[in-house]
Amino acid sequence: MSGRVYLDHNASAPLRGEARDAMLAALDLAGNPSAIHAEGRTARAVVEHARAQVAAALGAEGADIVFTSGATEAAALACAGRDLVCAPVEHAAVGAWCRPELPVARDGSIAPPDPSRAALQAANPETGVLQDLPVGLAVSDATQAFGKVAFAFDASGIEMIFVSAHKIGGPKGVGALVLRRGLDLRARIRGGGQEMGRRSGTENVAAIAGFGAAAEAAARDLRAGAWDAVAQRRDRLERALESEASGTICIARTSPRLPNTTMLATPGWKGETQVMQLDLAGFAISAGSACSSGKLRGSGTLAAMGHDELTAGSAIRVSLGLMTTDEDIDRFAECWLSRRSRHQARAA
Amino acid sequence: MSGRVYLDHNASAPLRGEARDAMLAALDLAGNPSAIHAEGRTARAVVEHARAQVAAALGAEGADIVFTSGATEAAALACAGRDLVCAPVEHAAVGAWCRPELPVARDGSIAPPDPSRAALQAANPETGVLQDLPVGLAVSDATQAFGKVAFAFDASGIEMIFVSAHKIGGPKGVGALVLRRGLDLRARIRGGGQEMGRRSGTENVAAIAGFGAAAEAAARDLRAGAWDAVAQRRDRLERALESEASGTICIARTSPRLPNTTMLATPGWKGETQVMQLDLAGFAISAGSACSSGKLRGSGTLAAMGHDELTAGSAIRVSLGLMTTDEDIDRFAECWLSRRSRHQARAA
Repeated sequence: MSGRVYLDHNASAPLRGEARDAMLAALDLAGNPSAIHAEGRTARAVVEHARAQVAAALGAEGADIVFTSGATEAAALACAGRDLVCAPVEHAAVGAWCRPELPVARDGSIAPPDPSRAALQAANPETGVLQDLPVGLAVSDATQAFGKVAFAFDASGIEMIFVSAHKIGGPKGVGALVLRRGLDLRARIRGGGQEMGRRSGTENVAAIAGFGAAAEAAARDLRAGAWDAVAQRRDRLERALESEASGTICIARTSPRLPNTTMLATPGWKGETQVMQLDLAGFAISAGSACSSGKLRGSGTLAAMGHDELTAGSAIRVSLGLMTTDEDIDRFAECWLSRRSRHQARAA
Repeated sequence: MSGRVYLDHNASAPLRGEARDAMLAALDLAGNPSAIHAEGRTARAVVEHARAQVAAALGAEGADIVFTSGATEAAALACAGRDLVCAPVEHAAVGAWCRPELPVARDGSIAPPDPSRAALQAANPETGVLQDLPVGLAVSDATQAFGKVAFAFDASGIEMIFVSAHKIGGPKGVGALVLRRGLDLRARIRGGGQEMGRRSGTENVAAIAGFGAAAEAAARDLRAGAWDAVAQRRDRLERALESEASGTICIARTSPRLPNTTMLATPGWKGETQVMQLDLAGFAISAGSACSSGKLRGSGTLAAMGHDELTAGSAIRVSLGLMTTDEDIDRFAECWLSRRSRHQARAA
């Protein structure tokens, strides 16, 4: 797919070279980390090194890190059976376990009255809107914010957060639940007693190694200000589209947002149609959130923010990565504007 | 660790070249399989190709295959909340969810009175004892038997089995639940609705690709009779030890067993001590089953088969792989016998 422009980083980001190298090395380790022989201890050391890398990247050296198969499993571990409330803009992996009762303001902000009984995302996967996370918050989905905005778990006063590797350039299929040390946690996957009894099953050594390496690299890039350039590119895109496309709404543009995400609604032009037209032209974007993007439904996030069905059904998400170039952005803007003109000509 | 001899394949087997190649190719795919753009569809195709490979290897083309993070997660999905009975020789991932009420004969065999309410392993991970799996069986842990003995799910009359990739030369961190098509299954990890709503979360594309390739290669090797040579090597080992070491019991030697597994009990010589002594001498073996081997406890399997504590605490498991050579076996036998003589001299 040479020549294609990938602008769906919130769905999944390309694997970082550091993660790939760490995985390749780990793939050659035959040992089961639970085995006490040398091969087992070598595999164990890889897992524990990655745990320290993830903890450092999250400012969570004083916390417990439980490796899971991804953010979705970690969300279940954090939220199931706890009778938490959330807003209807949470990812379905959280919404599956919480009562979706919290109101969402037009700007995307959410203020849980009792943080100790609430789940609240750090950043929305579709709009990129960042939340102020209150001290004492029970659970935060930090999947999209991790690596893109500064955060230190130990200083946050939050009980649990969870993250995923593949959004920060690690592999798909691994994530982590981060929880205040000593907190009770009822295992949902039981057996061999791995992860201090909180999550059984032979550890995904290679993916965990890749996650650790990606977390370290992501933290380094964040400290170096790499996302500032991405934010400028995103703003450049929004300016380019705005100046040409009246009637297109840039959702939550004035709210604090992730540096890489823009959500654009063009009422009357279906989001899925845009995704397919742009795909044919060589651009990967999405309508709605990552996991539900295959389902071709409108954005529940926009409805919760008070937008009407026509607007919500017309939204696309463009999410940039560290390797996205000005040229990528300009090519996308040009193509999208031409498709929009064609759509308007047809609709007229 | 050059020169070392790895004889702990039941804990985890080295990655097959075919699996490594498939993973390397998949690691370069940025797309989320749920995304509808070209990058997403490419990742989706990799997952579905692997699903067909796993189905073919299991004779399960007519069944549903749900990819999980491993056998332990699949066991929870298959067993939790169903009030099944099992024998106390099941892996802890099954034992965690079932009442351990079924009796085990001295030869290791188990006959559930009501198969439709029972979980029964295809092969025991420690002794290698194979079970006759009755028609109508609710759940079978096929993790250790998969790829080593002929089996066809669709013809078996069993409702569900589960398997793991890393026991057959695939990567750690991926497995599958195989179930009769259309059977009800309550998802334990919910959210994006992947795996037909039975197991949410972005698919572990690279590991799934490696699993598929490993399954195909394992089925090919099995058909080619590769395990017959392994069984001969295992028998050679047992003969070598038996002729020299009176007082050492080869557990369930006359029962139908996996071709690669031998469990040897030498009452009075602790299994963990043997594992550590052999490790220092360059051999990786285990005491007890894979996941609990780090815990240094005696074999619950042997106790359930009616062996006394002294015997159970003195057991080691030696599990061969397709790459194990006659020389490996002879070196192991020589080393083990010399350590045993030393132990006897000390004990005398």
